[in-house]
Amino acid sequence: MGKVILGVGVIQLDRRKKTPLHRQLYEGIRRAILESKLERGSALPATRSLAKQLNISRMTVVNAYDQLLAEGYLTAHAGSGTFVNCNLPDDVKMARFSFGSAEEGAAMAPISAGDSVQPKLSARGRRVAATDEGMRPTYKDQPALFSLGIPALDEFPLDVWTKICRDRGRAISIFGLTYQQASGWMPLRQAICEFTKLFRGIKCHPEQVFVTAGIQQAIDLTSRLLLDTGDTVLFEDPGYWRAREALKANGAALLPLPVDANGASIRSCGPPAESAKLIYITPSHQFPLGVTMSIERRIELLDWARRHDTAVIEDDYDSVYSYSQPPIPSLQGLDSSQRTFYMGSLSKLLFPALGMGYLIVPSSLVGAFESAFKIVGRSPSLFMQQVVHDFIAHGHLERHMRRMRKIHEQRHSALIEAIDRFLPDKLQLVGAPAGLHRTARILIDQPDTVLIEKIANIGFKVQALSIDSLTNSPDHNGLVFGFGCGTPKDISAGIRRIAAVF
Amino acid sequence: MGKVILGVGVIQLDRRKKTPLHRQLYEGIRRAILESKLERGSALPATRSLAKQLNISRMTVVNAYDQLLAEGYLTAHAGSGTFVNCNLPDDVKMARFSFGSAEEGAAMAPISAGDSVQPKLSARGRRVAATDEGMRPTYKDQPALFSLGIPALDEFPLDVWTKICRDRGRAISIFGLTYQQASGWMPLRQAICEFTKLFRGIKCHPEQVFVTAGIQQAIDLTSRLLLDTGDTVLFEDPGYWRAREALKANGAALLPLPVDANGASIRSCGPPAESAKLIYITPSHQFPLGVTMSIERRIELLDWARRHDTAVIEDDYDSVYSYSQPPIPSLQGLDSSQRTFYMGSLSKLLFPALGMGYLIVPSSLVGAFESAFKIVGRSPSLFMQQVVHDFIAHGHLERHMRRMRKIHEQRHSALIEAIDRFLPDKLQLVGAPAGLHRTARILIDQPDTVLIEKIANIGFKVQALSIDSLTNSPDHNGLVFGFGCGTPKDISAGIRRIAAVF
Repeated sequence: MGKVILGVGVIQLDRRKKTPLHRQLYEGIRRAILESKLERGSALPATRSLAKQLNISRMTVVNAYDQLLAEGYLTAHAGSGTFVNCNLPDDVKMARFSFGSAEEGAAMAPISAGDSVQPKLSARGRRVAATDEGMRPTYKDQPALFSLGIPALDEFPLDVWTKICRDRGRAISIFGLTYQQASGWMPLRQAICEFTKLFRGIKCHPEQVFVTAGIQQAIDLTSRLLLDTGDTVLFEDPGYWRAREALKANGAALLPLPVDANGASIRSCGPPAESAKLIYITPSHQFPLGVTMSIERRIELLDWARRHDTAVIEDDYDSVYSYSQPPIPSLQGLDSSQRTFYMGSLSKLLFPALGMGYLIVPSSLVGAFESAFKIVGRSPSLFMQQVVHDFIAHGHLERHMRRMRKIHEQRHSALIEAIDRFLPDKLQLVGAPAGLHRTARILIDQPDTVLIEKIANIGFKVQALSIDSLTNSPDHNGLVFGFGCGTPKDISAGIRRIAAVF
Repeated sequence: MGKVILGVGVIQLDRRKKTPLHRQLYEGIRRAILESKLERGSALPATRSLAKQLNISRMTVVNAYDQLLAEGYLTAHAGSGTFVNCNLPDDVKMARFSFGSAEEGAAMAPISAGDSVQPKLSARGRRVAATDEGMRPTYKDQPALFSLGIPALDEFPLDVWTKICRDRGRAISIFGLTYQQASGWMPLRQAICEFTKLFRGIKCHPEQVFVTAGIQQAIDLTSRLLLDTGDTVLFEDPGYWRAREALKANGAALLPLPVDANGASIRSCGPPAESAKLIYITPSHQFPLGVTMSIERRIELLDWARRHDTAVIEDDYDSVYSYSQPPIPSLQGLDSSQRTFYMGSLSKLLFPALGMGYLIVPSSLVGAFESAFKIVGRSPSLFMQQVVHDFIAHGHLERHMRRMRKIHEQRHSALIEAIDRFLPDKLQLVGAPAGLHRTARILIDQPDTVLIEKIANIGFKVQALSIDSLTNSPDHNGLVFGFGCGTPKDISAGIRRIAAVF
């Protein structure tokens, strides 16, 4: 019976453990009940006698009993004492449950996992989970040379940044702790509005600006709001594979939008294109080819989009950096028909660990996006938004950009000179001198996927152009070099070592 | 002809504007081309003569021409000079485009918006956009008395927090600037793993912990991965309306899971429930009723979920705060079949503006969630994750929790005493003394929606119970009071004023 069982044999109390004794006793009794060593309805010893048996204080027992009573494992009948709850389901089921210390739980998890069906992914879930292997990057403190989308972090003005963090930290008041507008902190939205107006020719009101966790979230929310499963999307070929994955995760059926030296060519699309609900383009600095979309192509595309009532995503990820000429103004600024969804990334303007970007939507859809931000996501922590705001508002971003443009230009020059010197007959550069990457076609008979493997083995992270290909055209055999995260010297030395791989 | 047109009459240069002259000239010529005042193919004046005409330096003209050449508005024929690009689409289409300063663009946007079809929302998009009016909160620095989900911000240890921000700010190195693991910073995930193990009886490995932007994102991602449109979800009735909106936004068909004094009762669900893919519950402290799910009910539900292979969302939003007894351990810790998705919010433990929470998923789905975080979202800025990590790792969170528990208990007491004193025959409290809110049924013949309107008019933000109702049962007529964001004195005075409204 309960009284007998609940002895020193069953309840192991260990005074050396940091777990308090009443908690150990609670766990022991709970386990005895769940394992059915204590039968439903059986009586428990009086607190005094159990305390004596276990040589602990009576309060320890009282605390343990109270908790078990509160949780429903035990019931108390006035006068007649404490019993195991009769209404607990029967032993068979019980045995399947886990209990005891977290350690044991963690240890047993894999085993118990085996003997039960796991939660299944939905069709939608499988689309999200089904990502290319290319999507499995390695995370190191120091990004590997030639990694993509990383600015010259070694030149980031940490002193300025940390001062703003310190000042903002000091300025936190209890008024800055409560719930904020899910779409973003208005002063930052205003600053982004002004900034993009000045440097990218954007035309918008601050309400149209949403602060995101980066471009991926912006693409995801936009395609979620505009697309149903199976809808057609015109996607640059070759085009940014992460964007492609985000669109596919939302059930988009991608149709190639050919890209040549003048950028994406809507004219080259066949009749099926006319069913497209959305066009994804990187007009200012095409990813991955790096070409700039000509003004004819831009006007053509916007006109086509208007005639076929198609929305346009303009991914303007790194276009503030242009080295041979000033950056081309945004497509959004040229679109008077309010169908462009403009996206920018502060990860490239400032640094990736910030994980912040912005999405500028047509005024007619501001309400819909506000709802989306409230229900399925929200803008980043107020503190980070305030720090970024101060960095922009105090003129640091503009200064930083001008400085970075020079630094990136030097790194770009180092890259193309090194390629010209060490790989003249192996690689042919394409695209314009801009942004944070440069792409080269492979002139020898070697698939890029094989080459990047070899290059990875000597410690560099170069991307294969074919990863961005929709049609797997033989033309899409090349290497995509990021030049932001290495000094000219590193870059030159890196290319020299890569040349040895060929 | 171009030469004639391009005179002082067309190009207005204003030396007082902060816009540089070459930019003004560029804009003027670009506009003249887009407005077709300059015909396609017409010749532009030589830089020297235009400079003289406009009384500006030749370099200013050269810069403007270069930019227009780069953008494709102009073409240069060696020897014969500079011309407007013949290949630009014809005037009719052109006229529809916008140009000029951002201000004008913004001004004309509404007009031009009118004469073109707007991007349409998809069916999925309409679901996201279709949110209850209840979802439109007002954002003030100081939350209104009785607002929900807000802890005692006036007692938050700002000094400790700002010191950590300062120290972390000082410690930022260029190695902390690059891309981070999308699922969250591992040291924080480990800290959350330990913390939930200790205080909520969670059993998991750090890899199962994902750092989210809050509970809404956790619910959204989970339902996205587990549900297809039209799938059935068992949802507490009454239940947390924001969670309901997130599930509906993902196309879930909600089936009521009745809640009584012992919490959600799976036994009370009819056969249709057996098709459910997912169950959403708040077992430790039910929202909105505040009841605690009995151990029988927990075991029953987990057993039912196993037999019908149903996944379970455990929303554990505020259960570290329990005043009459220690908090009930989590359902996740009782579930050995790895089907529970556990969610917590740091907005309630720390402060809402932080916008951070965590999601603990079954080990079998870690890979799928990692993909989701990479493609459609990502964990918050590294800096904030580090600050939160330090706050937990240095023992501040545990201290803070114990302190807050006392403070919240006092505020809770003030609330129930005031209701007992000022509204004894009007309101009847339900649920347990726990969390950050308390709910009361209305005993008089008045709909809660009418009452909260009246209460809002005297400046307090009380929620109507009926907002959380799926079945609109007459039983769901009540008031939900948040007691975290007011001193006992405020709360008592507030209830007294509310009593006058009845």
